Parts: sequence; C-alpha cells; structure tokens
Amino acid sequence: MPKREKSKRLQVVITQEQDSLLTKTAYQLSNPERLVSKSEVVRLGIEMLNRAVEEGKLPPDIIKSLDHDS
Amino acid sequence: MPKREKSKRLQVVITQEQDSLLTKTAYQLSNPERLVSKSEVVRLGIEMLNRAVEEGKLPPDIIKSLDHDS
Repeated sequence: MPKREKSKRLQVVITQEQDSLLTKTAYQLSNPERLVSKSEVVRLGIEMLNRAVEEGKLPPDIIKSLDHDS
Repeated sequence: MPKREKSKRLQVVITQEQDSLLTKTAYQLSNPERLVSKSEVVRLGIEMLNRAVEEGKLPPDIIKSLDHDS
C-alpha cells in the first residue's frame, strides 16, 4: 500500500486511558529494530476491527462497550 | 468510563482506503437506533488490538502489514 498517496488526516477524541493503551500497545509491538508509532497502532486497529466485522467475529463485549461510550 | 473526563485529541494520518474501511465499519456497526461514528470505530479498534496483544492473539498477517506500512 503506497503510504504517501491520498492520505487523510483523521481527528479522534480518546480518553487518557485509551491513550495509555495506545502507547502500551505500540511499545509491545515494537522491537529494537522496529519502532511502532501510535498512528500505526490506530491503523492496525482499524484493519483488525474491519476484519472482525467482515468475518462476523466481533467480540460481543466490544460491542457492549459502545453503549457506555457514547 | 466517563467520556468527557481527561479526553485527548489524537491526530492520525490514514489512507483514503483506510478511511473508507472506517466508514464502512461504522455503518456496519450502526443500526436504526444507534449510529456509530468513525471516532467510535477507532476507539473500538484500539481496544480490540490492545486486547489481542495482551492475549498474544494478534493475527500474524496484521503484524506483517506493518512492514509495508511504514
């Protein structure tokens, strides 16, 4: 996937808790040869979630968390 | 989780393709009583990805997509 083509800037409001999750996940995916940014984590998250929805494999408690979250 | 407390604004650069995925996923999670926003999809994605990492259940091809993506 060509990265610089047709990119869009997305603004998302997240809680500090979610920001910490992001940082933690980015760190866990990183290694000494490869630093993973928080942006990359977000992009991976989008891909994973989309895949789960397509395959009908969305964890039920994830959907539930929507209701608390709006 | 209290939503308005300690929120942070996150800027992420995504491709148009990923933006379309977001829209599509938001639509698929929506129903006539509950409209799901793209921001919510991103937040769910963060949660899902974090959970997968914690449980060591990250799909191997998701990790692979990192290498094309930086």
